[in-house]
Amino acid sequence: MLIPVILSGGAGTRLWPVSRQAHPKPFMHMADGQSLLKKTLLRGLAVASDEVLTVTSRDHYFLTRDEYRGVIDDRKATFILEPVGRNTAPALAMAALDIARRHGDRTKLLVLPADHLIRDIAAFKMAVASASALADDGYLVTFGIVPTRVETGFGYIRAGASIVAGARRAVAFVEKPDAVTAERYVASGEYAWNSGMFCFAAGDLLAEMEQSCPALIALARAALPPGGAPLELARDTFGALPDISIDYAVMEKSQRVAVIPVSFDWNDIGSWKAISELDSGDSAGNQIEGPAVLIDSHNCFVQSRGRLVAAVGVNDLVIVDTGDAVLVSSREKSQAVKKVVDELKSRQHSAANVHATVIRPWGSYTVLEDAADCKVKRLVVKPGQVLSLQKHFRRSEHWTVVMGTAHVRVGDEEFILQRNQSVYIPVNTLHRLENRKAEDLCLIEVQCGDYFGEDDIVRFEDRYGRV
Amino acid sequence: MLIPVILSGGAGTRLWPVSRQAHPKPFMHMADGQSLLKKTLLRGLAVASDEVLTVTSRDHYFLTRDEYRGVIDDRKATFILEPVGRNTAPALAMAALDIARRHGDRTKLLVLPADHLIRDIAAFKMAVASASALADDGYLVTFGIVPTRVETGFGYIRAGASIVAGARRAVAFVEKPDAVTAERYVASGEYAWNSGMFCFAAGDLLAEMEQSCPALIALARAALPPGGAPLELARDTFGALPDISIDYAVMEKSQRVAVIPVSFDWNDIGSWKAISELDSGDSAGNQIEGPAVLIDSHNCFVQSRGRLVAAVGVNDLVIVDTGDAVLVSSREKSQAVKKVVDELKSRQHSAANVHATVIRPWGSYTVLEDAADCKVKRLVVKPGQVLSLQKHFRRSEHWTVVMGTAHVRVGDEEFILQRNQSVYIPVNTLHRLENRKAEDLCLIEVQCGDYFGEDDIVRFEDRYGRV
Repeated sequence: MLIPVILSGGAGTRLWPVSRQAHPKPFMHMADGQSLLKKTLLRGLAVASDEVLTVTSRDHYFLTRDEYRGVIDDRKATFILEPVGRNTAPALAMAALDIARRHGDRTKLLVLPADHLIRDIAAFKMAVASASALADDGYLVTFGIVPTRVETGFGYIRAGASIVAGARRAVAFVEKPDAVTAERYVASGEYAWNSGMFCFAAGDLLAEMEQSCPALIALARAALPPGGAPLELARDTFGALPDISIDYAVMEKSQRVAVIPVSFDWNDIGSWKAISELDSGDSAGNQIEGPAVLIDSHNCFVQSRGRLVAAVGVNDLVIVDTGDAVLVSSREKSQAVKKVVDELKSRQHSAANVHATVIRPWGSYTVLEDAADCKVKRLVVKPGQVLSLQKHFRRSEHWTVVMGTAHVRVGDEEFILQRNQSVYIPVNTLHRLENRKAEDLCLIEVQCGDYFGEDDIVRFEDRYGRV
Repeated sequence: MLIPVILSGGAGTRLWPVSRQAHPKPFMHMADGQSLLKKTLLRGLAVASDEVLTVTSRDHYFLTRDEYRGVIDDRKATFILEPVGRNTAPALAMAALDIARRHGDRTKLLVLPADHLIRDIAAFKMAVASASALADDGYLVTFGIVPTRVETGFGYIRAGASIVAGARRAVAFVEKPDAVTAERYVASGEYAWNSGMFCFAAGDLLAEMEQSCPALIALARAALPPGGAPLELARDTFGALPDISIDYAVMEKSQRVAVIPVSFDWNDIGSWKAISELDSGDSAGNQIEGPAVLIDSHNCFVQSRGRLVAAVGVNDLVIVDTGDAVLVSSREKSQAVKKVVDELKSRQHSAANVHATVIRPWGSYTVLEDAADCKVKRLVVKPGQVLSLQKHFRRSEHWTVVMGTAHVRVGDEEFILQRNQSVYIPVNTLHRLENRKAEDLCLIEVQCGDYFGEDDIVRFEDRYGRV
């Protein structure tokens, strides 16, 4: 048995402003409308249909389930939820422990990072079949991408003695090299890019961890909850695990690591440059998504969610507009976008972490206006969802339903609001908003007060455990 | 007597997205917060305090008065309002006719384009004093800017025989030359840039027009209304005048034209490049106005009204964000911005002409959301102002006051709405909104319906003549 294990973590700060902490890289939509996460799930389902285990942040659980809806049966999608990110070794220790106890030591994990792109599914399936056979023989199998260029942005795996046709022993893992070293690696033919994908039996990884990182695996065993769907890890126990990658903790030390060289079109979506290289664009080399006017401009990648972008006399730029922010970057230097996020964090600017549209378990809200005298939001409540019973100390609210039907509680009264009806919620008054219908409920909320922060919410009952 | 005549027309499409047809270049604010128009008014008042006459579009009358408020006494600010733009010769014919009949033939006009910038007011005053003396002697005086570089973006004036110290006869007006010709002009020392500023007695211009463009002046006399403050020109009579500049119509033909060479820091604000050259920027050559993060970027001009702009690894760019649109242009090629406006017009995109914030005689509105199911606006009503008594056939409205106090009529009822109060205006119901207080009134309007166009307004009474 083989279970795809999707690792969905990390902020992807080099892909700001689309990727942000609250809505990171796996949730980014590609040009075809599918998110990287959904593509990864489909890739997993292409090689195994019984179960897909996803290890992700507690904060992204509902958003992840939204992506999975309609693609995988709820019962087949299992989750391990991390209260805090701890890199790949702790995540895979928990996944291996959970799978081993539920399915036995010989059940294999196929580890898939949620933020990479592989378009050739047939080639991927062939590589997984080879890896799976090697894993049955007790190997920890890595997938080494045969280099197509001198690249300093990836780690490399050095291949040693042959095991079977194609597969070789992995004898060294090296971090991102400098350009001279990278050139030597690529010229030698002995090195492949480390794709971050792995295949191994649960018991084999655990046995290797007992050898190479016994403290870590001991802490992992202590952090494993008895059960639960989703399996929620606790901050005090899981948080005690070290922040370390599976490469450092296990692969570099183990004698049982194999590398399968693969040549499919793998893209780590590591920067806007990487995304811009997925397509060749129009006759001027421009790729345009959204409303844009380009004059005398070439080789530009332009993406806008709705605002108008105009470019005049510019070349080789990435221009990305998310409504609340716009990035203008040199294509070649787009790795440095992460410095923007660092700067925004040091300024405590919310655009470092959250979008104008904020995803909530019940739906989403978009800030339309954030002024000194009022804040205006558009709320979208999904069918069957309900916001917490809550009140605010420093703001009153005026709701106007513009789509769907709202079931509302204000104080002790409960009633229905239809489209084009509105209600006033005074300061310090209990209220709740619910959508019992099968279509989305949209309303415009006008807040009046002297403070509009998200921390002025006192929750009394909450379906999503946020009280 | 000398009367500054401010010519405030033209769209300034090369300064999109800040300058648009509904809010053109004279209303652009410089880094110090003052508009070009206000600066022009102040310049006029520095040399004459009795009256300033402004020739502008009927559409921009209220906006112009907003700019003038607190700077000039209402009684001293006179206006000629054009129903349609007809270039400088018709505008100055009307101004000269109006001034001659009110103040006599020997009253001088000092013609000031509203969209130029001169920072050295002392030098300006000295030049005006010289020009005024020459005008008294019967000359039509032009101000020739002594060239500081080879420039192909301006017209040139060729100076001939000396009249008095400094002043010479103007013997030729030439259009924007090519680079070789411009270089020859500048090297010769005989040419100056045509600033578009003039000084002449009203009667002298009219007499010259009788000689050089008799048909035009005859039509102008016929288009002159008997009176009115503002003096409103009629579309059927004024619209009959030819679209022609004062240079073509008069200056090139007249034998009485003088040129005064001036060396003050004149800037025609003809492009974003021209604006970016007003300041040298920080140590990296960047000029930043608004929230922006620049990483590894140099010589960039960044202006944002509130949205976050991030630039990474780029040089010599102009980035201008107006909330609804963003321009990314090469500094050198920023003249081509007008092609963006052409393209937007061909797509019938509203951003070609109007801003997200639309100025109205009573204040302004900003569209916060424009969706299929609703439209949300923030309205600002100025003290003492009132919107028309109106109704809509295809939308109802929900108003929530977030600042100030509203006097409201809905149907036959009149009442007061305070901050944090709201009201519902059903479809097809007469309503009116008024601000009788001394502070701004702000409200959030949520429109529900199936059509939200500005043409679904039936006006019954309107203080601003829009019924």
